[in-house]
Amino acid sequence: MCTSLGYKDASGKVYFGRTLELTVDLPYQVTYFPPGYETISEVDGKASLTYAARFGVLAVAMPCRVPTPEAPIGLADLKVLEGLNDQGLTFSLLSYPTAAGAQKSADITQSVLSASDLGSWALGQFASVAEVKAALEKQPIELQPLALLGGVVSPFHYVVHDATGASLVIEFDHGVMTVYDNPVGVMTNGPKFSWHLTNLDNYTFLTNVDQSSATFGSYQARQPDSGIATAGLPASNTSVGRFVRAVFYAQFAEKAATPDLAVKTLAHVMNNFDRPRGVSIDYPTQGGGHMEVEGLQEKADAPYATEFTCWTSLSDLDRKIFFVRDYRSLNFTAIDLKALADVKAPLVLPLQKLEGIASDATAMLMAPPKAA
Amino acid sequence: MCTSLGYKDASGKVYFGRTLELTVDLPYQVTYFPPGYETISEVDGKASLTYAARFGVLAVAMPCRVPTPEAPIGLADLKVLEGLNDQGLTFSLLSYPTAAGAQKSADITQSVLSASDLGSWALGQFASVAEVKAALEKQPIELQPLALLGGVVSPFHYVVHDATGASLVIEFDHGVMTVYDNPVGVMTNGPKFSWHLTNLDNYTFLTNVDQSSATFGSYQARQPDSGIATAGLPASNTSVGRFVRAVFYAQFAEKAATPDLAVKTLAHVMNNFDRPRGVSIDYPTQGGGHMEVEGLQEKADAPYATEFTCWTSLSDLDRKIFFVRDYRSLNFTAIDLKALADVKAPLVLPLQKLEGIASDATAMLMAPPKAA
Amino acid sequence: MCTSLGYKDASGKVYFGRTLELTVDLPYQVTYFPPGYETISEVDGKASLTYAARFGVLAVAMPCRVPTPEAPIGLADLKVLEGLNDQGLTFSLLSYPTAAGAQKSADITQSVLSASDLGSWALGQFASVAEVKAALEKQPIELQPLALLGGVVSPFHYVVHDATGASLVIEFDHGVMTVYDNPVGVMTNGPKFSWHLTNLDNYTFLTNVDQSSATFGSYQARQPDSGIATAGLPASNTSVGRFVRAVFYAQFAEKAATPDLAVKTLAHVMNNFDRPRGVSIDYPTQGGGHMEVEGLQEKADAPYATEFTCWTSLSDLDRKIFFVRDYRSLNFTAIDLKALADVKAPLVLPLQKLEGIASDATAMLMAPPKAA
Amino acid sequence: MCTSLGYKDASGKVYFGRTLELTVDLPYQVTYFPPGYETISEVDGKASLTYAARFGVLAVAMPCRVPTPEAPIGLADLKVLEGLNDQGLTFSLLSYPTAAGAQKSADITQSVLSASDLGSWALGQFASVAEVKAALEKQPIELQPLALLGGVVSPFHYVVHDATGASLVIEFDHGVMTVYDNPVGVMTNGPKFSWHLTNLDNYTFLTNVDQSSATFGSYQARQPDSGIATAGLPASNTSVGRFVRAVFYAQFAEKAATPDLAVKTLAHVMNNFDRPRGVSIDYPTQGGGHMEVEGLQEKADAPYATEFTCWTSLSDLDRKIFFVRDYRSLNFTAIDLKALADVKAPLVLPLQKLEGIASDATAMLMAPPKAA
Repeated sequence: MCTSLGYKDASGKVYFGRTLELTVDLPYQVTYFPPGYETISEVDGKASLTYAARFGVLAVAMPCRVPTPEAPIGLADLKVLEGLNDQGLTFSLLSYPTAAGAQKSADITQSVLSASDLGSWALGQFASVAEVKAALEKQPIELQPLALLGGVVSPFHYVVHDATGASLVIEFDHGVMTVYDNPVGVMTNGPKFSWHLTNLDNYTFLTNVDQSSATFGSYQARQPDSGIATAGLPASNTSVGRFVRAVFYAQFAEKAATPDLAVKTLAHVMNNFDRPRGVSIDYPTQGGGHMEVEGLQEKADAPYATEFTCWTSLSDLDRKIFFVRDYRSLNFTAIDLKALADVKAPLVLPLQKLEGIASDATAMLMAPPKAA
Repeated sequence: MCTSLGYKDASGKVYFGRTLELTVDLPYQVTYFPPGYETISEVDGKASLTYAARFGVLAVAMPCRVPTPEAPIGLADLKVLEGLNDQGLTFSLLSYPTAAGAQKSADITQSVLSASDLGSWALGQFASVAEVKAALEKQPIELQPLALLGGVVSPFHYVVHDATGASLVIEFDHGVMTVYDNPVGVMTNGPKFSWHLTNLDNYTFLTNVDQSSATFGSYQARQPDSGIATAGLPASNTSVGRFVRAVFYAQFAEKAATPDLAVKTLAHVMNNFDRPRGVSIDYPTQGGGHMEVEGLQEKADAPYATEFTCWTSLSDLDRKIFFVRDYRSLNFTAIDLKALADVKAPLVLPLQKLEGIASDATAMLMAPPKAA
Repeated sequence: MCTSLGYKDASGKVYFGRTLELTVDLPYQVTYFPPGYETISEVDGKASLTYAARFGVLAVAMPCRVPTPEAPIGLADLKVLEGLNDQGLTFSLLSYPTAAGAQKSADITQSVLSASDLGSWALGQFASVAEVKAALEKQPIELQPLALLGGVVSPFHYVVHDATGASLVIEFDHGVMTVYDNPVGVMTNGPKFSWHLTNLDNYTFLTNVDQSSATFGSYQARQPDSGIATAGLPASNTSVGRFVRAVFYAQFAEKAATPDLAVKTLAHVMNNFDRPRGVSIDYPTQGGGHMEVEGLQEKADAPYATEFTCWTSLSDLDRKIFFVRDYRSLNFTAIDLKALADVKAPLVLPLQKLEGIASDATAMLMAPPKAA
Repeated sequence: MCTSLGYKDASGKVYFGRTLELTVDLPYQVTYFPPGYETISEVDGKASLTYAARFGVLAVAMPCRVPTPEAPIGLADLKVLEGLNDQGLTFSLLSYPTAAGAQKSADITQSVLSASDLGSWALGQFASVAEVKAALEKQPIELQPLALLGGVVSPFHYVVHDATGASLVIEFDHGVMTVYDNPVGVMTNGPKFSWHLTNLDNYTFLTNVDQSSATFGSYQARQPDSGIATAGLPASNTSVGRFVRAVFYAQFAEKAATPDLAVKTLAHVMNNFDRPRGVSIDYPTQGGGHMEVEGLQEKADAPYATEFTCWTSLSDLDRKIFFVRDYRSLNFTAIDLKALADVKAPLVLPLQKLEGIASDATAMLMAPPKAA
């Protein structure tokens, strides 16, 4: 469904990559919310919470409801799935089907934050994981039914990364919220984050060092290729398999010498989590609902559902550059958050406008640059 | 070391992707050899073979020797590693360390083709796999020591694909050449191609259909994510693991509805074979030579060697477009072979000139297109 | 460390097998405690608990302390590791290193059962899992430091099976006791039982049906052997791997037509969990303590520790026959609990006296029975 | 289908274990052929070969044809599947479905050995692998259609082990015989032996040393059990998976200090290759023929076929003791070849007469030996 991971370069600068997988295309919007932008978060029957952004926020967002002629989608309907603020804080929403359950009700006098607004709340107001963590201790949060998902209660969990490399997981499980410091900087989907950490204990043998020769009896075995170190990784593209592989890649991908190379290295890493349509498919008889966010039903006439990487993003937390590649793009497109510093109004651009096509070098081949 | 695979779209058009992995960067050259371009292939002690190209050939090539002030690299020194001709035929050279051995000597009266020239020979003269195969029956070929590899005898095998989807493997093993029809359209490295095919018999259980529920005793197991179908794939990045995964991806990636989407789908597939530096490393004590082409030694002061995907290419055999992304590029760059139809002279452009950087959409975000 | 599983024959009769793995040989005792046998369970600072057995209990037991000349081991020092009572109830203790932690203190007026006496308490008094479960709701239990383990707090969890096929897990984790109905009838060691159940969700693809042919491209793959269905099992001999394999074997081993064949089938199943010395070894630098019950230290001069199957037992819950094979035995030896019905005094026999040697058929071969 | 392996104890003495798996029970016979016993091996249209045994041979044999009232099974009809001679040489026949093919025809003047008689020929006449190997260079051998298998051409390959630890593979593949020195002392079934050896190159990372701790990010992973070293083994019960596991077990099982313990250690090893009925099953639609020896068809009314370990044998090559356990036996039974030294006539005993039941220790428990 989703894979996210943090990566550091040789000088300790932080980069963050993620994929988002669903079985359908959604009307994702690239948005920019400037400092001062105000949000009103509302939970039925609770005092609403209003906050103004202190920081500029670049995000991939999604409308929280179906537009109608009378009520087209407005800015307030756009909820952050993935974002980066001008302090180098990132926020990511990832599928987590077992979030819903009996929630502890907030004190009646308190304003309550809807979990759908966690992204704008965290990115708009905080510069570090430590600040987010401190604020979470005081701010009641509630999950709500989501109109766009046919009333399913917000089936997500959330991760926050900052420019120091700190990482936080915010997870509702059967209604109970737990905030975890994330020692590995990786998140995928279910089961519970603590289950995944325990599962790493089953992979203590992992190393990136190839052991390419061995003697069995009097046979001298010799692996003729490099890469045998990866033989013990789980191959499965399920949440559990991807978690372990993401930990491995984040750990062992070479620390790049420059920010540019770091972004490219992170792209190479994330490419390994790029899921093409058709590589795994689900028939309804297997109970489709298990597969992803309920409410996002496939068209009734599709013979099967197949999860694919709708988009992959890379965030440079130091230089505040955001890269995104959607499934119908060959290539990444960049957006520079620093260049938006003087923008005063919110900006919205459909993700599909970023075509990410390959630049054509035919002309350059015909007339190569002199120094070549 | 290398992964190659063919993919078909919904209308049966053919696309071909490959990666090349080594532990060092080499001075790869993007080249175009027009129809009429003449090659003289020479093998010590044998009659040389001269042939003129009938077809235009776009290729990634490498010099076969170290340049000196007196003898800089010339066109004749560039040998094809990967190429596409204007008939939609592709040729790929992939590492195969056990190629060398006692070779059957050609009849003294015959002109002999050096294996290093197989690429220009096949792409320059033939339009289909069938033609290549027929020509191979008559043309003696010999492996030679390669100066650039310190005199190592050409440690490669070769694959040819055409626009009908046919695929051919040309493999020297301990000096004995075998030509195989390739029923799966996939190639990686050692062991012998026939070993890999037999190995597929160990994966008859593979399917892309998720089986996401089961009952164990009275426990109802339910996989909460999609993708469990991939649990049985080999995870290893060695030649053997990549072969099986490539067969699986080539088989099950959804047949794209359009050529554009087909190229993007193939890119998503090839992304899964993108190897970042550091993910597996080899220490000299494990006997570096096992790892790759001998002769390409790491600098003596490097503590370890690590294979990485030096470049990935995508070929559209119908539209004759070639895409390539090198390790220091975020993105693919395109070259359109059709647009070179009128070019009369050979063209050469260092691969590193194709930067493949991300287009910047910041301005577009600030001033979105109207229709948005 | 330990693998346990329940198996049913074609008529629904229940059999139970288990292995016990440690890195040392201990002075195991085969014991019989007749109905009426009285136990006093003592926990420091708590009211002691006295109970008389209602049922005859056959068990493999271990002294809870080191004998001294003044205080040789007595009956009261023998604690049940594995047992079967004359009602067809079994009890098993298995290693679980994270049992200890802050425990809920019992009401001061209540008698407390030491966890070390769970075996004699359960087997002596109850005929079914339901009875044990009901009794556990009322009976406070506490873990205690164990003298024989150098004062380590009882690092075990416990399973109970009955002749209906019901199965119960009693698990202290960091001091907190949880009683689980066991829907799969399997137990090994850590992590928590609920973690193992969740882990089964990663194996929904498992089936015993071989899928022995497939088509990849135009290659007809054909698995030449039976058994490909087992390719997706975890191979690891760790607790996590053994749990999944045990679930698989318990589920799919053919339901035997007769009790005799059922015992043999269960033996074949348990053979797959028979761990020879040396197959995995642990060096002290890896922190030996992880490996097993702390306190059972290897002799200081052993270069490594290696877990092996100290003994394997099979219980026929219907016929009340117990079979046991220790590491130094080739074969199982049987003890018939029904034949002990008239025994009035406790019985003790060192396990090592049961040699389990092969019967010699040389004479039979020399003079075959007539009907042959 | 079959797993065989050699094992050495601490003083270098050799032991050999094997299993035989089919989907049906056959009328196996335990036989003894004394020195002097004469065999006439016949191949249609060739000169027959007559040889007298120099050594006593203990074997598990099978009739080569269906008995009729007129022609009951005689000694000459019994063909050796597994045997041990009084020199400590063993011979084993294992399933190998692709043996048949165009065979090189022997010189018309030469006597030809039928492959069905390889066991009696090798065990009766030779004391070492070296002697067998030398004799094979001169003796033409041919595969023949087997009446009992419905005329299928002998679908087997063969291994010979001796008391020095030497091991030989005799393999017909598509009619071409190859004799291999076996550097690992392991054999299972297809594909070709040389394929299996190459496959070991994919397991160079295997070791028996647990690596039970690792650091991922700032998470300290710690495997709580021993045995993680086995995580990289293939789990599959197919020929390919069993070959690798058998190599691993033969390599790493602790070298036992005494012959008795060595036999028990080997038994523990072989237990890991004990396949219960039902654990993998084959439906006819998958093309049953793939599964095993053709001609051994399941009864038409069986819904599926399931391979099981029909019997397991252990040979002590130094002490010349043979142990065997069939599927309907709980335990091994021993036969001492040394005790047969004075036997002058052939002996035959149906394998099913060796019941291998557990000795009953109930009485011993009631009246323990004094020293206990």
